[in-house]
Amino acid sequence: MPSNAVSITQDLIRCPSVTPVEGGALATLEKLLGDAGFAVSRVTFRDEDTPDVENLFATIGSGKPHFVFAGHTDVVPAGAASDWSQGPFDGNIKDGVLYGRGAVDMKGGVAAFAAAALDFVEEFSAGFGGTISFLITGDEEGPAVNGTVKLLEWAAGQGHTFDACIVGEPTNPEKLGDAIKVGRRGSLSGIVTVSGIQGHAAYPHLADNPIPGLTRLLAALDVLELDLGNERFQPSNLEIVNLDVGNSAFNVIPARAEARFNIRFNDEWSLESLKSKILETLQAVNLGDLELDVAFKRDASESFLTKDDKLIETLGSAVKAETGRSPELSTGGGTSDARFIKNYCPVVEFGLVGQTMHKVDECVSIEDLDRLATIYKRFLVSYFAKDSGAR
Amino acid sequence: MPSNAVSITQDLIRCPSVTPVEGGALATLEKLLGDAGFAVSRVTFRDEDTPDVENLFATIGSGKPHFVFAGHTDVVPAGAASDWSQGPFDGNIKDGVLYGRGAVDMKGGVAAFAAAALDFVEEFSAGFGGTISFLITGDEEGPAVNGTVKLLEWAAGQGHTFDACIVGEPTNPEKLGDAIKVGRRGSLSGIVTVSGIQGHAAYPHLADNPIPGLTRLLAALDVLELDLGNERFQPSNLEIVNLDVGNSAFNVIPARAEARFNIRFNDEWSLESLKSKILETLQAVNLGDLELDVAFKRDASESFLTKDDKLIETLGSAVKAETGRSPELSTGGGTSDARFIKNYCPVVEFGLVGQTMHKVDECVSIEDLDRLATIYKRFLVSYFAKDSGAR
Repeated sequence: MPSNAVSITQDLIRCPSVTPVEGGALATLEKLLGDAGFAVSRVTFRDEDTPDVENLFATIGSGKPHFVFAGHTDVVPAGAASDWSQGPFDGNIKDGVLYGRGAVDMKGGVAAFAAAALDFVEEFSAGFGGTISFLITGDEEGPAVNGTVKLLEWAAGQGHTFDACIVGEPTNPEKLGDAIKVGRRGSLSGIVTVSGIQGHAAYPHLADNPIPGLTRLLAALDVLELDLGNERFQPSNLEIVNLDVGNSAFNVIPARAEARFNIRFNDEWSLESLKSKILETLQAVNLGDLELDVAFKRDASESFLTKDDKLIETLGSAVKAETGRSPELSTGGGTSDARFIKNYCPVVEFGLVGQTMHKVDECVSIEDLDRLATIYKRFLVSYFAKDSGAR
Repeated sequence: MPSNAVSITQDLIRCPSVTPVEGGALATLEKLLGDAGFAVSRVTFRDEDTPDVENLFATIGSGKPHFVFAGHTDVVPAGAASDWSQGPFDGNIKDGVLYGRGAVDMKGGVAAFAAAALDFVEEFSAGFGGTISFLITGDEEGPAVNGTVKLLEWAAGQGHTFDACIVGEPTNPEKLGDAIKVGRRGSLSGIVTVSGIQGHAAYPHLADNPIPGLTRLLAALDVLELDLGNERFQPSNLEIVNLDVGNSAFNVIPARAEARFNIRFNDEWSLESLKSKILETLQAVNLGDLELDVAFKRDASESFLTKDDKLIETLGSAVKAETGRSPELSTGGGTSDARFIKNYCPVVEFGLVGQTMHKVDECVSIEDLDRLATIYKRFLVSYFAKDSGAR
């Protein structure tokens, strides 16, 4: 059993790598993989509108098949550290559970694969008949502009072509072995802005308050049923994620009110048909003289479904061998960088249990970390054995 | 006609007394009133949470009736001076109009009463059978903590009891003589907070989004009709003035959503009955497992209506004699320091035309300034003549 998954996870959690800050997490991986013989490249991407982001590509071996593990070391903010029972960047273990931001999403997944790969490479030091690469970004939780998309382009430019990919995102709802993700819903975000006329709260007839108008728009979105799902995908869902007015004075009627939404949608919709539906729903609301503006975010993605039986079956067998369970082939949950990787090679996702991700007291059992490393190791052994036989 | 109203207004405008800065405005009044025989006290109030504020109390004469004029020399900020056609603190006159921050709110009103009082005191130098005082604060446009409230307490501690008060705030919507304010609506502000469970936007079943709950609460407040008004007051009105969630990430369901409201209410309600109504309305909304918290702000005020016929009629007659118009007895508009003074004596409000207050190019016609001084002088003559006869 690869035994380093826990300590590597602790090392990574202690790097406060909140997007877009590198925080030492990639440097930790660079050292670890470099020492094991991987060729490691640190690649920084720049863009006018978004922060610079550091990324890492590491590769070992040669020739086909070329398997790539994809993940990220950036994490969402911890919120108030005082709300946590353990410091969010301390990496403390208590009662067999490791706490910290990124424990399951997804420093734990990256660490488990690193432990598995190091173990595999050492075991097959004479050669394993192919190539293993790490594609690690620091921009998965952020705008995803200077991360995986550009790193995939960069790797292609370096001559790398991939045959299969596992993304180590937390795919299991409750227990390790619950689910492999073989597709993802699409994601569409947007900003609804209502503009009125500013004024004094004591003279409302001289003003036009945008907030009641926004309330009516939100009520219309709240009752909107997009679809009922199908055999491949769960129902599409819309969440209002932020409200903002920016008025600190109780005696002032504001000029502007804004809501932000995010939709996770299945293959009953395309981005185009969904945008039309949202616009139609909002425009049907009576706003009087208030002005409505709807801006969809550019970083939207379509839904997708992966159909590579060999990849799915090899991973499924490794999961079953370790956990005794046959994982569901799921398309639930959020987006991941798999939406970009699917344009380069077949991609599936398997990682830890996602229940605490993005929450206060995000945590992972050390047992799960070790078992995930074992699953990844089993996969590598079978994948390269089978594949070298098949080709 | 008291002829100094214009020059005193210019002197005061030239003192840049933006709350809480004294700026020389109270020193100007101190000199002016002291030279005319008033006993002048400068009183500074301190408080842990708010800035120190200077105030002024001046008094002349002795015995009853004791009339007090209340006002403020602090002003709201001018904004960018370059937006003004005249310097906001220059006191320039152009085409018969005096420009400057505080011209109508309310250095002009203070100056007009000072001119009237000086004229009256000189005319009745042998004694006018009573007492005239000035209650001038530097904290009306600010938090109103270290101003009129404490100055009233201080004056009571010095043995002063008042029989009637005029506040010189700009009460006229369009023309001098439009309206005397004989009461004010109350004001109640509060914060509605809904708490749920934070989570990932792609896993809504693991979270509990507070925003749809807040939307339902806001919808309930939006359709709430508090009353239809009555012959004394316009209808009570509730405005939602802010929404805040503080979540910048599109993929995070927030834990908390907040709305702030302000209610201007008439004498169909007390603060107590209104708070009960708001709580009842909010608590009737089904929020599922979401938690509701309602916090009312401490700086609330009851509505009030002054019923002192002698005060109202004496002022109304003075207005009519000078302008030829019978002023409406109004209770509209916002709050003023009258809400504090009403606990000490009957209080009404009459001053200049409010159209330019708090705006760029705040201004007053010099004709209005002189006429307001004449109205105040007429009032003093009638008030002390009548009152000395009645007692």
